[in-house]
Amino acid sequence: MAKKVLIVGGVAGGASTAARLRRMDETIDIIMFERGKYISFANCGLPYYIGGTIEERKALLLQTPEAMKERFNIDVRVENEVVAIHKEDKYLEVKDLKTGETYKEHYDTLVLSPGSTPIKPPIPGIEKDNIFSLWNIPDTDAIKAYVDNQDIKTATVIGGGFIGIEMAENLYDLGYQVNLVEMANQVMAPVDYDMSQLIHGHIASKGVHLYLENGVESFEEENGSTYVKLQDGTMLQSDMVILSIGIRPNGELAKEAGLETNKRGGIVVNEYLRTSDEHIYALGDAIEVVDYVNGEKTMIPLAGPANKQGRIVANNIVGRQEAYKGTQGTSIAKVFDLSVAATGNNEKNLNRLGKVYGKDYMMTVVQPKSHAGYYPGAIPMTIKLMFDLEGKVLGAGIVGYDGVDKRIDVIATLMRMGGTIHDLKELELAYAPPFSSAKDPVNMAGFTAENILRGDMEPIIWSEIEQADQDKSILLDVRDKIELDLGYIEGAKHIPVNDLRQRMHELDKEKEILIYCAVGIRGYIAARLLNQHGYKVKNLIGGYNFYKCVIK
Amino acid sequence: MAKKVLIVGGVAGGASTAARLRRMDETIDIIMFERGKYISFANCGLPYYIGGTIEERKALLLQTPEAMKERFNIDVRVENEVVAIHKEDKYLEVKDLKTGETYKEHYDTLVLSPGSTPIKPPIPGIEKDNIFSLWNIPDTDAIKAYVDNQDIKTATVIGGGFIGIEMAENLYDLGYQVNLVEMANQVMAPVDYDMSQLIHGHIASKGVHLYLENGVESFEEENGSTYVKLQDGTMLQSDMVILSIGIRPNGELAKEAGLETNKRGGIVVNEYLRTSDEHIYALGDAIEVVDYVNGEKTMIPLAGPANKQGRIVANNIVGRQEAYKGTQGTSIAKVFDLSVAATGNNEKNLNRLGKVYGKDYMMTVVQPKSHAGYYPGAIPMTIKLMFDLEGKVLGAGIVGYDGVDKRIDVIATLMRMGGTIHDLKELELAYAPPFSSAKDPVNMAGFTAENILRGDMEPIIWSEIEQADQDKSILLDVRDKIELDLGYIEGAKHIPVNDLRQRMHELDKEKEILIYCAVGIRGYIAARLLNQHGYKVKNLIGGYNFYKCVIK
Ligand SMILES: Cc1cc2nc3c(=O)[nH]c(=O)nc-3n(C[C@H](O)[C@H](O)[C@H](O)COP(=O)(O)OP(=O)(O)OC[C@H]3O[C@@H](n4cnc5c(N)ncnc54)[C@H](O)[C@@H]3O)c2cc1C
Ligand SMILES: Cc1cc2nc3c(=O)[nH]c(=O)nc-3n(C[C@H](O)[C@H](O)[C@H](O)COP(=O)(O)OP(=O)(O)OC[C@H]3O[C@@H](n4cnc5c(N)ncnc54)[C@H](O)[C@@H]3O)c2cc1C
Ligand SMILES: CC(C)(COP(=O)(O)OP(=O)(O)OC[C@H]1O[C@@H](n2cnc3c(N)ncnc32)[C@H](O)[C@@H]1OP(=O)(O)O)[C@@H](O)C(=O)NCCC(=O)NCCS
Ligand SMILES: CC(C)(COP(=O)(O)OP(=O)(O)OC[C@H]1O[C@@H](n2cnc3c(N)ncnc32)[C@H](O)[C@@H]1OP(=O)(O)O)[C@@H](O)C(=O)NCCC(=O)NCCS
Repeated sequence: MAKKVLIVGGVAGGASTAARLRRMDETIDIIMFERGKYISFANCGLPYYIGGTIEERKALLLQTPEAMKERFNIDVRVENEVVAIHKEDKYLEVKDLKTGETYKEHYDTLVLSPGSTPIKPPIPGIEKDNIFSLWNIPDTDAIKAYVDNQDIKTATVIGGGFIGIEMAENLYDLGYQVNLVEMANQVMAPVDYDMSQLIHGHIASKGVHLYLENGVESFEEENGSTYVKLQDGTMLQSDMVILSIGIRPNGELAKEAGLETNKRGGIVVNEYLRTSDEHIYALGDAIEVVDYVNGEKTMIPLAGPANKQGRIVANNIVGRQEAYKGTQGTSIAKVFDLSVAATGNNEKNLNRLGKVYGKDYMMTVVQPKSHAGYYPGAIPMTIKLMFDLEGKVLGAGIVGYDGVDKRIDVIATLMRMGGTIHDLKELELAYAPPFSSAKDPVNMAGFTAENILRGDMEPIIWSEIEQADQDKSILLDVRDKIELDLGYIEGAKHIPVNDLRQRMHELDKEKEILIYCAVGIRGYIAARLLNQHGYKVKNLIGGYNFYKCVIK
Repeated sequence: MAKKVLIVGGVAGGASTAARLRRMDETIDIIMFERGKYISFANCGLPYYIGGTIEERKALLLQTPEAMKERFNIDVRVENEVVAIHKEDKYLEVKDLKTGETYKEHYDTLVLSPGSTPIKPPIPGIEKDNIFSLWNIPDTDAIKAYVDNQDIKTATVIGGGFIGIEMAENLYDLGYQVNLVEMANQVMAPVDYDMSQLIHGHIASKGVHLYLENGVESFEEENGSTYVKLQDGTMLQSDMVILSIGIRPNGELAKEAGLETNKRGGIVVNEYLRTSDEHIYALGDAIEVVDYVNGEKTMIPLAGPANKQGRIVANNIVGRQEAYKGTQGTSIAKVFDLSVAATGNNEKNLNRLGKVYGKDYMMTVVQPKSHAGYYPGAIPMTIKLMFDLEGKVLGAGIVGYDGVDKRIDVIATLMRMGGTIHDLKELELAYAPPFSSAKDPVNMAGFTAENILRGDMEPIIWSEIEQADQDKSILLDVRDKIELDLGYIEGAKHIPVNDLRQRMHELDKEKEILIYCAVGIRGYIAARLLNQHGYKVKNLIGGYNFYKCVIK
């Protein structure tokens, strides 16, 4: 068993490993190296400190080296950078950044949790001192000092991932005019394009200028002002810029030591989080993990997995063998008033793996309310759920306000347990009017998914409507008359669902009837009715509301 | 297959069956009988309409007979009471309450969803017209008219179940002085006594007078005032009284027809929700169900199960065989600012089944924050989790503020899928600071449960502290000095956890050290430390905070 354990990295993965290790074994020598000045800080809280939601800087520092010593008897060495691993002789070369001196430290077991680093591509002008990345406490201090001391009116955030969006929101909270620039056709990659359209609308409604499918060409200086020049020529005057376009794993140390790494530089580990060297474990952002849903190798840099891997690594070191079963990618972000969450595989993932809609997987979109509609404050959320043809749930994305986090966690739990849409519909969840409905939103996703899978409701999705052959199909709007004022799909015939039994003879049985209502329920009822009377029907998944948001 | 289906009861179970049945089959004749004036009303919203949270009466009426006819072609007969079932000849005797006439209606298949009725025991004075039960729209109208038109200052609610508590809260919202009387030693039976103590404190803090272990002896009239006389002689002057002491299933009709019923009058059904007669199905509050966790027969009257059973009954009627797998008892109530939730079996259930703590099941109590502590608004919740010695989760109760509903739903989902505490600790839930922590509260419950089960943390529970042999044990308080001002357990020695490595020699190795901190984490760290140095230790589950609430 390990006598001396060295840990590289003193934040999410590293500190968690150290704490658990000590709880499991009083006798081990534990040394934790951190090249930064701080350990155990709340990475995820940094944007909110800049925006002022978190008021106290010290709230970000969850542990100090002194307290780690007192409570856990851990030798924490901040401003000590591990510069080389000598795995044959089992020692590290460490540089004390305060003195500049380098020393050796032997280990029985080594743990690598070096995290990742924000990407800073060689864009002309990127070295300007009003262009920031946000990753750690010094970054935060720099940005905070800048926003506190400069007269800022405009800020541009580059990158629409969750950190970029959180920063956009926090800079907006400071009263700035904010631009958000994203190279892809959508922000928040964990959800699909259709779902992201709900987010785009919301961001725009806040007055944030969103530039999609547009990269940064250069940072220019004109008349004492910084301009972000986009690929399409747009010039965004910006008093400050936040760069948040992605990260790369800190795998160099491992690679240089001859440990196996993957193409993206991630450290390769087995299910016990052991690297290709049996005395070295690795965890956190720096490692390659197994996608829990599809079994493929991937990289998913999130705090929950890093923390839990820390506990597992510690267990394995003390001989309590425990496997890490993979990462599901459950994630969430507050996007202004919206909550955006995902778990498992989205359609983009599935398609990348060669899976085809309708053949390998199906999907449902429902828009149930956060709680009983008759109790004040109920607001709809949009749930998109992917499942395979056996009913196994593959992934979900949710965009909404209240209660999004609950539903994604329930679905994530179900998926972790290998659940199907049939399980989803049966879930017995807590219902009282302030919290949910007798049929919870996730039950609704389950019911509709089952109806699709059993062929009780033939679905048509937003992208298929445009392609429908107008000669062979009829678009049928079954909403109430008054709802037509909110817009409708061009060319649709209108018969309200409640009149359909009387008026169905107006429809041509030879044609395929493409039905829609606002969210899909009445369309489904209409579809069942017509179907049983011998009509060929399809129901628009997500209804007109979803269609209208996606097709803008 | 069924040609004519008659449904008795037009609310949660009945109306859900009817709607699904029509969606599945356009050709069936469906007649739904409801003895009341209203169908498809929001039972669960009634208290909130009385208190004014729900402003519009019409919000309570989710469907009308007319709309059910238009949309679903269902013949809805309100104010029609089914008075007899002639199962041999397959017809009903129905009394039209408007005309007083009785008629026959034949069926191929019959569905019983008659619900339940509030118990009104023969307490002297119970017929006074300011004593109300709350069960349906007419009850609601009566109470609403009374509170709107009378000058009420004091109200007494009898019964501390969820309807009683919701009414207490809503009457309090109207500005009344409210008394809450409960025969048992706790309110909110779905959680255990220890958890209920957290609720009692909260209710009292609102100025509501709580009378526990005290029944009503009589209702007296003195000087034009009504008094509720309790068994201990207390007289509660009450301008109005709400009686909410329990319900009984409406099983008489079934029993008189010779269908199998249980001791409590509940209708016995098989897994397909079919009664002892193959042409008759039953569902909702009136039926006996299987407890999903322990497999025993029970009665669990809740809206979620009734709604889902409706869908299953309809499926079975149209020949799509589907089993109802049992009820888990997942439930929640808003209790003033608190949320109180439960799923599965509590300790009372387990003990009733002969299960013994420590032998058949174990438990953990954790008090994690609703979301990351450094993000504003994080509030602790108390989670009590029961699990068997193989780790299978048996039940949970949660009391707290924000995020209680989410955690009970996650645990309910895990339990539905047969999950263990090991699964619980691995759940990958959505984390960003406004929503959760990198280790979610339910993960924490999983970690601590595993530590208990593996023997890494020997637990002691609040009720065992008093019984500890003072000669053979030492109580050790490992909190910081300043926390002693908040109270401590008499006779405890004080060594802060961070000083323990230096000062452990002060402790007697021959004695058992009973450790506590505020919630249990530092106690656990101290216990691990001492244990590895050869001390016999136990850690107080839930810590001093929980102990102090329970032992008052
Ligand atoms: C602004 C921001 C917001 C975030 N929000 C969320 C969120 O809401 N939800 C979520 O799940 N995740 C979020 N994350 C991601 C999450 O913080 C990371 O996934 C997690 O911290 C990874 O843990 P780790 O131990 O791998 O790396 P880190 O926590 O980054 O720790 C690695 C440490 O290793 C040190 N190090 C590296 N190399 C060496 C060396 N050679 N010698 C010594 N020390 C070294 C680094 O200085 C660093 O401090 C966020 C991250 C950031 C930056
Ligand atoms: C005030 C209140 C609050 C509640 N809050 C919640 C909550 O927050 N969460 C939750 O899960 N549950 C709650 N419930 C319970 C939930 O409403 C019931 O479990 C559910 O309605 C049961 O459905 P059911 O179809 O069995 O009975 P019901 O919905 O009660 O319907 C039965 C109907 O059958 C009719 N009927 C009976 N006999 C006959 C006959 N012979 N002929 C014709 N008609 C007949 C009755 O008049 C009644 O309308 C609450 C109930 C009440 C009253
Ligand atoms: C109002 C009432 C008749 C509605 O019954 P219902 O039509 O079965 O239920 P809903 O309106 O919730 O709709 C659910 C149906 O819509 C479908 N659906 C939901 N969202 C959909 C969408 N976006 N697209 C397509 N279909 C959708 C579901 O699949 C389900 O159909 P299925 O059962 O055939 O699969 C019944 O719930 C009722 O009487 N409720 C009041 C009484 C009550 O429940 N009280 C207790 C709680 S307060
Ligand atoms: C601060 C830090 C060192 C704490 O690590 P930790 O001690 O393992 O974790 P926690 O403080 O959450 O405590 C969890 C432990 O307490 C135990 N515990 C929790 N509640 C308990 C209770 N009521 N009774 C007994 N034990 C309890 C758990 O079982 C667990 O112990 P185990 O792992 O041995 O089973 C580490 O989380 C860290 O550095 N975090 C900051 C960085 C970070 O995570 N960033 C990303 C997110 S912003």
